[in-house]
Amino acid sequence: MELNEKRMISRLAELGRVGIDAEGRRIRLAADDADRAGRDLVMGWMREAGLRTAVDRIGNIFGIWETEENRGRDAVMTGSHIDTVINAGQYDGCYGVIAGIEVIASLREAGLRTERPLAVAAFTNEEGVRYSPDMMGSLVYAGGLSAEAACASVGIDGTVLGEELERIGYAGTEEPGFLKPAAFVELHIEQGPILEAEGYRIGAVEDLQGISWQRITIEGEQNHAGTTPTSYRHDAGVAAAKVITFMRGRCLQPGSRTVSTTGCIEFSPNAINVIPDKAVFTVDVRNPDESTLQAEEKALAAFLEELEKTDGVRIRTERLSRFKPVLFDAGIVRLVEKYAGKHGLSCRRITSGAGQDAQNMALLCPTAMIFAPSHKGISHNPAEYTADEDLIAGAEVLADVLGELAEAH
Amino acid sequence: MELNEKRMISRLAELGRVGIDAEGRRIRLAADDADRAGRDLVMGWMREAGLRTAVDRIGNIFGIWETEENRGRDAVMTGSHIDTVINAGQYDGCYGVIAGIEVIASLREAGLRTERPLAVAAFTNEEGVRYSPDMMGSLVYAGGLSAEAACASVGIDGTVLGEELERIGYAGTEEPGFLKPAAFVELHIEQGPILEAEGYRIGAVEDLQGISWQRITIEGEQNHAGTTPTSYRHDAGVAAAKVITFMRGRCLQPGSRTVSTTGCIEFSPNAINVIPDKAVFTVDVRNPDESTLQAEEKALAAFLEELEKTDGVRIRTERLSRFKPVLFDAGIVRLVEKYAGKHGLSCRRITSGAGQDAQNMALLCPTAMIFAPSHKGISHNPAEYTADEDLIAGAEVLADVLGELAEAH
Repeated sequence: MELNEKRMISRLAELGRVGIDAEGRRIRLAADDADRAGRDLVMGWMREAGLRTAVDRIGNIFGIWETEENRGRDAVMTGSHIDTVINAGQYDGCYGVIAGIEVIASLREAGLRTERPLAVAAFTNEEGVRYSPDMMGSLVYAGGLSAEAACASVGIDGTVLGEELERIGYAGTEEPGFLKPAAFVELHIEQGPILEAEGYRIGAVEDLQGISWQRITIEGEQNHAGTTPTSYRHDAGVAAAKVITFMRGRCLQPGSRTVSTTGCIEFSPNAINVIPDKAVFTVDVRNPDESTLQAEEKALAAFLEELEKTDGVRIRTERLSRFKPVLFDAGIVRLVEKYAGKHGLSCRRITSGAGQDAQNMALLCPTAMIFAPSHKGISHNPAEYTADEDLIAGAEVLADVLGELAEAH
Repeated sequence: MELNEKRMISRLAELGRVGIDAEGRRIRLAADDADRAGRDLVMGWMREAGLRTAVDRIGNIFGIWETEENRGRDAVMTGSHIDTVINAGQYDGCYGVIAGIEVIASLREAGLRTERPLAVAAFTNEEGVRYSPDMMGSLVYAGGLSAEAACASVGIDGTVLGEELERIGYAGTEEPGFLKPAAFVELHIEQGPILEAEGYRIGAVEDLQGISWQRITIEGEQNHAGTTPTSYRHDAGVAAAKVITFMRGRCLQPGSRTVSTTGCIEFSPNAINVIPDKAVFTVDVRNPDESTLQAEEKALAAFLEELEKTDGVRIRTERLSRFKPVLFDAGIVRLVEKYAGKHGLSCRRITSGAGQDAQNMALLCPTAMIFAPSHKGISHNPAEYTADEDLIAGAEVLADVLGELAEAH
């Protein structure tokens, strides 16, 4: 079996050129015009690979290779997503979809027969930039959210996802979950620095961090920056800064695997000489262990409660998102290690720091992921980069893993 | 001599109704339409008080009471400003202008004669919301900035101050500084909580804090909030939070009179699951002692330098504004105490935490200020409030101080 490596690499670049705006930023949000153009490309490549295409009611697209012999059996699936963040790189998600098409095409073209159908999916709205929640298409596919509720989602631009899917011609008729998976393996870039920094070519993803998103609103008292002695202040901004440094402190405790990020912040009234009466900010906390993640949430809540007293502020929290950690299938993880070894590729077990479609597919079937190194760990950024040889290495491991799972012979 | 107290109080309310927008916010920015309407009111009241009005080239307006006997001698001046912040209270600035008119009218109506002319000023653009710098009119009047440079100032709305003054009919012809002051006494609300909290009716303002404004830009590395281990992060937002808590720590050192405020902050890209690669925020530091203020600036600079190393970030600072502390005239401060005592008003010496027109007038002549208590210290806010009896008490002290300075008999 031979992968058409050049075709895979050039398709990544070709898809990467879809959705470049006037400022040169790559923006392909779920069900927008650029997403349609990207989907059209992917559907064309699926057909070219001899796959039967299908679209479900939430717009997930599938390329399916099944034969007279294996039709009706649960399929071995791979896939990812092609929607992007704003000003994205070209690898995130697209790599897994394009490599998946290539791998199935290669198995098929090599004249192999498989005991199970093989399928590659491109899931709708993984990034969650335009519509909430993120990883929506795979969540709907796995039965965690109804297609109706998902299609009713109103976007940041006021659009309704279901109407947008109709508009771009990707409101399919298949019922989500129509193709029963026997196993799911997602190939993805790491989006983090570990593999490169430690010199590994392949990550065998054994688990996925739990994610806790909260929006915190601190209300203090607006006052004059010059005339209000420190002891009279109820400064919402200072309180917010204390929360950020507190969470950083938690992450730095010896042995902690917690990461915490405050990505969004806003002060009101946001004037240089006015003590902020309001600070609104987000806290994204992740840990691969559910009980530890809960302990972090509790520590944060206790800190906020204390802060209300010490700083004379009122604090409100809203849970924006919460995913439990996912433990991937140990058997598939071992297969990834085995075939990395066969190709002479250094491999380590790794935790997915990001949310992934695979975490939803894990609700349906044995699931795992394969990571390729990300240069400097940069992702969600035009500087996102994975070397061609690493992209190819990941696809080769995927091919072998899918081959074994589908009992190719 | 009798103050027309009711007239003073009702004029404060009348001026306070000028510039209420559709959302109910009081907004009277330098040289806008509301400011014109406010100026028209004030000019009318000056004329009604029998004062000669004059407007200088930066739009400062003056009501002057001079007689055959004292014409040509340096004038005893009072005054403040009538421009406001966005969503302002009705007292800040307006109190000093309206009380000044009332006090001079009362002296005149009482049939007193004075050895010096008396004048009340309303200075242009004290708040500095629309045009920079703040306290502009008094700065130009005192010779610290040319009228040409000030008039060329471009506002946050793209307008040019000189053109706007022409448009509203307040581009005067007097040369700034035309009326030489023998002394300047500004009556103002405290805008801070001290007088009320400690039970004083009058503040004899002996000095004014130095002000240091900086904009700090921290550049780190944008990365994925889930996939980037803490040790790999260069989080501009965490670094900003450390600066804010560091400065709060300085203020809390025993005996410190420093206040520090971060009123504005912005993270980029400001996404919940992206480590900020950029944080831009302001630091407003004040202290009544110049060497201490310099020490605070140095401590901040040293902390930022250290932060560049510990957090792997790049930091840039811009000085936005810098005023040295001002020591007011001890003789006038004693007069304030003397006449507060005469009226049976409890009085304490106090530092002005805010910048004031008086600090510029202090460049020209012996200067001091009188503070009336601000309820809960709230200012730059519609909830700004000073009780009528406190407004009247302040005006009575002002009348006596101006009377003695002008040698009324």
